[in-house]
Amino acid sequence: MNETHENSFVLHGSVIYSKNAKELCAFEDAYAVCINGISAGVFEKLPEAYRPLPVVETKGKLIMPGLVDLHIHAPQYSFRGTGMDMELLPWLNTYVFPEEAKYSDLSYAEKAYRLFTDDLRQGATARACIFATSHKEATLRLMEMLEESGLETFAGKVNMDRNVPDDYVEDTGESLKQTKEWLDAVNQAAFRRTRPILTPRFTPSCTRALMTGLAELAKEYGVPVQSHLSENPSEIEWVKKLEPDISCYADSYKQSGLMEKDIPCIMAHCVWSDDTETAMLKENNVLIAHSPESNINLCSGAAPMTKYLELGLKAGLASDVAGGSTSSMFSAIRAAIHASKLRFRLYEETVRPLTFAGAFYLATKGGGAFWGRAGSLEEGYLFDALIIDDMAIPTAREDLTVSERAERMVYLGDERQIKGKYVSGRRLF
Amino acid sequence: MNETHENSFVLHGSVIYSKNAKELCAFEDAYAVCINGISAGVFEKLPEAYRPLPVVETKGKLIMPGLVDLHIHAPQYSFRGTGMDMELLPWLNTYVFPEEAKYSDLSYAEKAYRLFTDDLRQGATARACIFATSHKEATLRLMEMLEESGLETFAGKVNMDRNVPDDYVEDTGESLKQTKEWLDAVNQAAFRRTRPILTPRFTPSCTRALMTGLAELAKEYGVPVQSHLSENPSEIEWVKKLEPDISCYADSYKQSGLMEKDIPCIMAHCVWSDDTETAMLKENNVLIAHSPESNINLCSGAAPMTKYLELGLKAGLASDVAGGSTSSMFSAIRAAIHASKLRFRLYEETVRPLTFAGAFYLATKGGGAFWGRAGSLEEGYLFDALIIDDMAIPTAREDLTVSERAERMVYLGDERQIKGKYVSGRRLF
Repeated sequence: MNETHENSFVLHGSVIYSKNAKELCAFEDAYAVCINGISAGVFEKLPEAYRPLPVVETKGKLIMPGLVDLHIHAPQYSFRGTGMDMELLPWLNTYVFPEEAKYSDLSYAEKAYRLFTDDLRQGATARACIFATSHKEATLRLMEMLEESGLETFAGKVNMDRNVPDDYVEDTGESLKQTKEWLDAVNQAAFRRTRPILTPRFTPSCTRALMTGLAELAKEYGVPVQSHLSENPSEIEWVKKLEPDISCYADSYKQSGLMEKDIPCIMAHCVWSDDTETAMLKENNVLIAHSPESNINLCSGAAPMTKYLELGLKAGLASDVAGGSTSSMFSAIRAAIHASKLRFRLYEETVRPLTFAGAFYLATKGGGAFWGRAGSLEEGYLFDALIIDDMAIPTAREDLTVSERAERMVYLGDERQIKGKYVSGRRLF
Repeated sequence: MNETHENSFVLHGSVIYSKNAKELCAFEDAYAVCINGISAGVFEKLPEAYRPLPVVETKGKLIMPGLVDLHIHAPQYSFRGTGMDMELLPWLNTYVFPEEAKYSDLSYAEKAYRLFTDDLRQGATARACIFATSHKEATLRLMEMLEESGLETFAGKVNMDRNVPDDYVEDTGESLKQTKEWLDAVNQAAFRRTRPILTPRFTPSCTRALMTGLAELAKEYGVPVQSHLSENPSEIEWVKKLEPDISCYADSYKQSGLMEKDIPCIMAHCVWSDDTETAMLKENNVLIAHSPESNINLCSGAAPMTKYLELGLKAGLASDVAGGSTSSMFSAIRAAIHASKLRFRLYEETVRPLTFAGAFYLATKGGGAFWGRAGSLEEGYLFDALIIDDMAIPTAREDLTVSERAERMVYLGDERQIKGKYVSGRRLF
């Protein structure tokens, strides 16, 4: 134990984190210990060995893990909260593609990405997996800004070589060439906390040749993959027509070599995955990025998250800006519970709704798994923590439990109550 | 036109209001004219006759009608955002009844109601219909605070004489006596903007004798009625058992004389109203208080609002704190759209989702109808207005339309952006 390391300290307050998808661990008065950026555990009485460490006194405040956003589109941040009267495919053509095409202009990209990274930094998100645009330069600039922000992120240059407007579509070979150059540039930049991730947009906008080429790059460079899967009924119908030889939508990624056990892979949505697809996701260790608000806004539906968790699938939570209107992961937790409740009542009563504990798990430990051990304050986890002044949200009650306080924060809180934020033991503010 | 009246002035900015449930009227640069607390209309060029009036310069700001919350429980504000893992009936027994029983203590009631009225005053709500508790004194105190707040409200002492815990249930005769005394006290108080409304909790907690007695008071005192209707499947089953002779849940109110054409009446929820009930609601001019977030939180379902509107039923929007977690009516608009989209996708695709225009209508003109002409800036409406600095919500885009700005405010905004608020032409801040 290196007592002098800047990333070794103790937080003292009311602590909450997920034990698993069903149970929370909550402590009215406890010490969360960080040693060299890694949690040494949470203790109701501070062990002798840690007494020499500096104590950050936040008694009465709530301490929870930093939240993990598994799927967010940085260039769509500029039009979040508008155009929500459309479903996925018309929305892509009307709002997404025209806006993303603007990021060929590096000065526009810098201005827009500054707002995005500032917002992420001051919110509850500690870790994120991010879609950029197809533009290599703007994506690199975004990654530089993310590196400065102190967040831990994966970010990807988007690939797409079909069914995208002329001013934004890529040539297959050029897309792969640009991606290779981007990966080389990222390696050269030697970021400490900002990593590249291969990002084929989704099957409708990627030929098999492009996806196969990307799979080769994934192996060559040892980088993970992110994409979209089984989001909206009309999209799923379209994929069936585009790829008549697949057994399920996921099979288009599988056949291209992008969905392999040894390539870490995030698939956003999985709203309508059938048994074949569910088995394929499990077999290939895919991490599902559940994007509830986006799935509601674009009339996609609601993914059966408690069923997936019971089947042993891996899953985390996502804001999916700008299908989701807000980057707030508190809001995403609420949306996950909401979506699951309406799904339960209106569609399939055998799939129980997410509890608060279940949704909190997705937003922390569930998504944190993409970084190994993150999203918890248990021993051995990367030390991400939020210090929250939740009692600034008025109430006449003086008997709220720690779990009720965390729940209240999720329903009513925003960045105003976040008084401190640590990522891998580094204090951002 | 009395030019010297303090309630006569002009607001200059970007104006938006509902034309009807399908269309918004939006003006990039316009003048909203208030004469003696009543709107004289919105003009792109200020008419000669209004030039002598003082102009409140809010160029670049968004001006919209104050929002209308048709159903909110003041005593439940203290535990909003907690206990959301339960359905309606266990939630009532676990959280609602024990908390509401505390309001027999006037000092607790004062403390809790102060937080509630402060919150409502600083938010987007201009008008509200409020449930208090069964306690006469605490309800009167709440009404005094509401009067001070400057909001226009109806508030009701709750009645309930069965199926409620012993420390909170009322005797039938005593309940009616207390209600009469409360109505007399309210008349004596001679509030200017705070009116009484009879408030039988809901059929499961009200005997026919109590409801019949309340119907007599409604006629004697000329006061309106509010209650709950067809909210949660388990509640509806229970009502069927309790009242075997009714044709539908609403019929329990109808048979008691509480649902009459000439008694203004608000029924919260109407999630599961069948054709018989829908016809009864229409025939008796009932105003539906759609409470989408509450209906989601308590796993009740989602009301078919576009169907109701197309059938010519009257409807407005509600936060329903603490079934709903927040008193924010921006949040309620978002929840209404969300609920309708999942209902459409997962339950009944023949009932189209609410558009932004449709949900905005419910939150303004739809609910405002309970005060006659309120919830719009059109000529002849009570002049309720919010001045909103929506561009304080960051974006790289400089080409947002007024409608997009309003939509963005609904998805992303909160009370921080509200820079001014008028109710019936009086400036609250």
